[in-house]
Amino acid sequence: MEYSELVKTLERLVSSPIYAVLGKLKEENVIFFSTNEGETNISAIINGRVVRLTKEPIAGASNPKPNLDFIPFTRDVEKGKEIHAVYAVNLKGEEYEIASPSVRIFGLGYDEKNIAFVGISQTEASLYVIENGKLSKLISNFYPFSFVTDVSDGYIIGFGNLKGNPKSQEIFIADLSGNLNVLTPKEGSSNIAYLIKDKKVYFISDYENLGESYWVYTYDIEAGTYKKIEFPEKDIYEFKPVELSYDPEDSLIIAKREGESRLFINGKLVSSPRGTITGATRVKDEIYFAHSSLTSPYKIYKMNRDGKLEVVVRSEFNEDFGDVEYVKLKSDDNVEVPTWVVKSKKGRETKVAVVYVHGGPWGEVDNSWNLFIAPLVYLGYHVVAPNFRGSTGYGSKFQLMDIGDPGGGDLRDVVKARDYATKLGEKVGIMGYSYGGYMTLLALGKEADKWDFGIAGAAVADWVEMYELSDSAFKNFIEILFAGKNLESMRDRSPITYVNNVKAPLCIIQSQNDTRTPLQPVLRYIQELHKAGKTFEAHIIPNMGHAIYKITDAIDILLPAILFLKKLYG
Amino acid sequence: MEYSELVKTLERLVSSPIYAVLGKLKEENVIFFSTNEGETNISAIINGRVVRLTKEPIAGASNPKPNLDFIPFTRDVEKGKEIHAVYAVNLKGEEYEIASPSVRIFGLGYDEKNIAFVGISQTEASLYVIENGKLSKLISNFYPFSFVTDVSDGYIIGFGNLKGNPKSQEIFIADLSGNLNVLTPKEGSSNIAYLIKDKKVYFISDYENLGESYWVYTYDIEAGTYKKIEFPEKDIYEFKPVELSYDPEDSLIIAKREGESRLFINGKLVSSPRGTITGATRVKDEIYFAHSSLTSPYKIYKMNRDGKLEVVVRSEFNEDFGDVEYVKLKSDDNVEVPTWVVKSKKGRETKVAVVYVHGGPWGEVDNSWNLFIAPLVYLGYHVVAPNFRGSTGYGSKFQLMDIGDPGGGDLRDVVKARDYATKLGEKVGIMGYSYGGYMTLLALGKEADKWDFGIAGAAVADWVEMYELSDSAFKNFIEILFAGKNLESMRDRSPITYVNNVKAPLCIIQSQNDTRTPLQPVLRYIQELHKAGKTFEAHIIPNMGHAIYKITDAIDILLPAILFLKKLYG
Repeated sequence: MEYSELVKTLERLVSSPIYAVLGKLKEENVIFFSTNEGETNISAIINGRVVRLTKEPIAGASNPKPNLDFIPFTRDVEKGKEIHAVYAVNLKGEEYEIASPSVRIFGLGYDEKNIAFVGISQTEASLYVIENGKLSKLISNFYPFSFVTDVSDGYIIGFGNLKGNPKSQEIFIADLSGNLNVLTPKEGSSNIAYLIKDKKVYFISDYENLGESYWVYTYDIEAGTYKKIEFPEKDIYEFKPVELSYDPEDSLIIAKREGESRLFINGKLVSSPRGTITGATRVKDEIYFAHSSLTSPYKIYKMNRDGKLEVVVRSEFNEDFGDVEYVKLKSDDNVEVPTWVVKSKKGRETKVAVVYVHGGPWGEVDNSWNLFIAPLVYLGYHVVAPNFRGSTGYGSKFQLMDIGDPGGGDLRDVVKARDYATKLGEKVGIMGYSYGGYMTLLALGKEADKWDFGIAGAAVADWVEMYELSDSAFKNFIEILFAGKNLESMRDRSPITYVNNVKAPLCIIQSQNDTRTPLQPVLRYIQELHKAGKTFEAHIIPNMGHAIYKITDAIDILLPAILFLKKLYG
Repeated sequence: MEYSELVKTLERLVSSPIYAVLGKLKEENVIFFSTNEGETNISAIINGRVVRLTKEPIAGASNPKPNLDFIPFTRDVEKGKEIHAVYAVNLKGEEYEIASPSVRIFGLGYDEKNIAFVGISQTEASLYVIENGKLSKLISNFYPFSFVTDVSDGYIIGFGNLKGNPKSQEIFIADLSGNLNVLTPKEGSSNIAYLIKDKKVYFISDYENLGESYWVYTYDIEAGTYKKIEFPEKDIYEFKPVELSYDPEDSLIIAKREGESRLFINGKLVSSPRGTITGATRVKDEIYFAHSSLTSPYKIYKMNRDGKLEVVVRSEFNEDFGDVEYVKLKSDDNVEVPTWVVKSKKGRETKVAVVYVHGGPWGEVDNSWNLFIAPLVYLGYHVVAPNFRGSTGYGSKFQLMDIGDPGGGDLRDVVKARDYATKLGEKVGIMGYSYGGYMTLLALGKEADKWDFGIAGAAVADWVEMYELSDSAFKNFIEILFAGKNLESMRDRSPITYVNNVKAPLCIIQSQNDTRTPLQPVLRYIQELHKAGKTFEAHIIPNMGHAIYKITDAIDILLPAILFLKKLYG
């Protein structure tokens, strides 16, 4: 295959849009996040017609309020540095800028009068509120790793690491006078507050089944009482979700276990294809939800009152190119590692398997369309994607196993995935973005004999220098991950410490303006590679940061990876 | 145009082969250098059929000897580091390795018994001879910037900077006992010895018309006398060549002036298309020559005894995409700058002109097919390619104007070309490889307001560090260029000194194993760019050095440049 054919394939796959149903505006208009036309945007289904509302790429958005006709969103205004401004757009597609606080924004809640968010600067975090268009810092010295999720009834809610315990997450409730309440139903539990309705905070928590699974609860702000949500139908109980979200307005639950999710109405299972559901909303008596799987791109379905499904938004891409398997690997210390395996249906002279390591580390590869995995499989590479300890989707106990131990047990899990991958490929390499890029560099240095190649995007090369360069949120993120500001441990877990051991050819892809995993330490890593005479290539991408907002961003990142593999294996 | 379309175009243009007729073997078999099948190779026309003789990419080759059936050549054996081994191939395409001296090889002469070359290590140069397959150093501590061109009658000849005068070139004649004779017909003249025939050394020299133009002379080794070559027909005298080469065996002259060349038989002009002739040879009463121009790819023509031309080897690419103009710009100090202008026939919404700066600096853009210019023009960019002071093709006086002044007057000439380019493009950028990459970085730093973008391949970022890293040949090269080991001047003329002034977005492309313009100083330059918050992208290419041996090498270098422009201007 010529380069041009490769690029064409990449363009086709990458331009297959991502959809996530966010909710609705004015009761009848489905609002969804989309990457249609190659850019992150907010789109709507208005009278059955799909309309893109925002023009330039967006960074984040609120959940829409069914009673309102606008939705606030954020946009990166410094070329990928994740310095955000706040905008809003209405159903007519009229955009207006609301505030430009020059901070990184975590979460964005709103109601008819107020917008609230956590704003992060280099030195501190603050809880901001925009009241009738006027920006103010409601609370200074706020929690640097926390997120606003909703505003209603005069309250702002959110969650985060609020008590200094790296293994727990708490809820906050602030009023508009700046009074703040930090809550947890049980010390050490993980809690995510996501909605206020009728002065009740809806949140998911693992406090009743600590470390194992989450359920939905409410906290009554005025009464100060917690209550477990129960559902009239029993399917949801039988499903035994590990994670779930619940929309009380629409009686819809999306529940997840073992890397797949299902939709439930009042607790009753809705029949839908296997894969992952990204958002659902009810309009009159029809339910809209977004769905994808590792081998089928995103679609938005409409289900009518008889349970009949109709695809209302879909990508043009529709080819059968891979077989999906879900396996549980046993790591050295008996930890189970849930792993997605996607075998390519295209033949290759040299069989090549890629261990794809997801980012986060608190994230997962689930059975949903994946921008990195789909092109690899389509081009003939088998992919093994381990959900190493620290991944989400398997309960907080599993998720918290990497606290104080990044690049330790999780690396062992990744090496297990590599051993599995040798059954599929004569050559086995490792690839990842963000934390996955970190794992790639670390694996090539600490387990140098195990790999035939590595592809590291947006990697962490040196935790210590990254810590110094980070803003207050990502400093806190690193402190949580390392269970404190443990510089010795940071050095020990940094790829640059092991750069001289690297054996496999390495492709490094790094964005110039990345403020999460900054370029500077990666440049030092490149210099060390070069001094040591290692075989590597490096691609530094301009005007771009950690996030992917445009199709050209995705191609800038993926194209060097694909050409690197092409040069190695044809 | 999508990325994939761009890449396809690039592949088509880059795979259009380069041809240079080297001579013939066994009287009847035309031998030519080719990049057919995307790799540098030696090919032959045997009984009218084109046959590729060498398998893997080659680095350099001797001129074939008409009485022999084999030709020696060199191959890079350290992934682009230009550490060469010597091979030979015969007309059956049988290759054999002759010697592996682990040095950089400059020039390769041979006869039936001996092969000779200058071999350069980090610390010294030596004149090597391979006698009946046995490698030995004939002369140690040889001239580090010198080239063997022929071996015959027990003599080895060549030329180089042999008297320590940066503004002259002398001839050497060594015998197989290691006796060495350094010659010049006139102190301070430039001389290139290229052939021994009947114990006469054929060389071109500017000694009779110092600084202005070259002619062909012989030096009789036994008599010790110089003789000017005269031709029976008068066309060659009327043409007034500035440079020429003459094959006494075939009575063929290729003569050049004003960036184009013509073929002459016994001094009589042969009618051929405008452009540049790269080698000619006579087989029986037919003459074969290679030809190209800026807008027509390489062909090999056969001329029969009636003067009728027939194309015998051609590339598939045949499209009308540009208009060529040749202009003389006047630089600030009244220096005339011969400049090729190629206007694209494809429209573009934003008109963009690229000032393309050639490498060397002792080289030129002439009216021949150019791997960098053709894709730019085809994709809609206008190209202005100045032959700044220091370029070859316009006499040695012009060529020597950069001695002691690199990045001085030549940069002013390039800025003149930029001023001219503003008439063609709303946006004007600069692009070059090697010395052209150097000029690009320097121009962006010292003339920052003049450019909308820059693309620097294999650039010099810091002459001082490059000097430290260079082998003895390139140390000497830098000493010639700076008229001595002038560290202060090297610092003053280094782009890294001006990195903080850069304004235009910059694309840097650098090979990992480049031993002429090494990566290390460029990595420092990149770090400085990043610290200063400049907009740039960088692509470090693995397993490759300064030279381009394969189509994928060319694409690795050109693709980032083309995508960079695409992102800027669509």
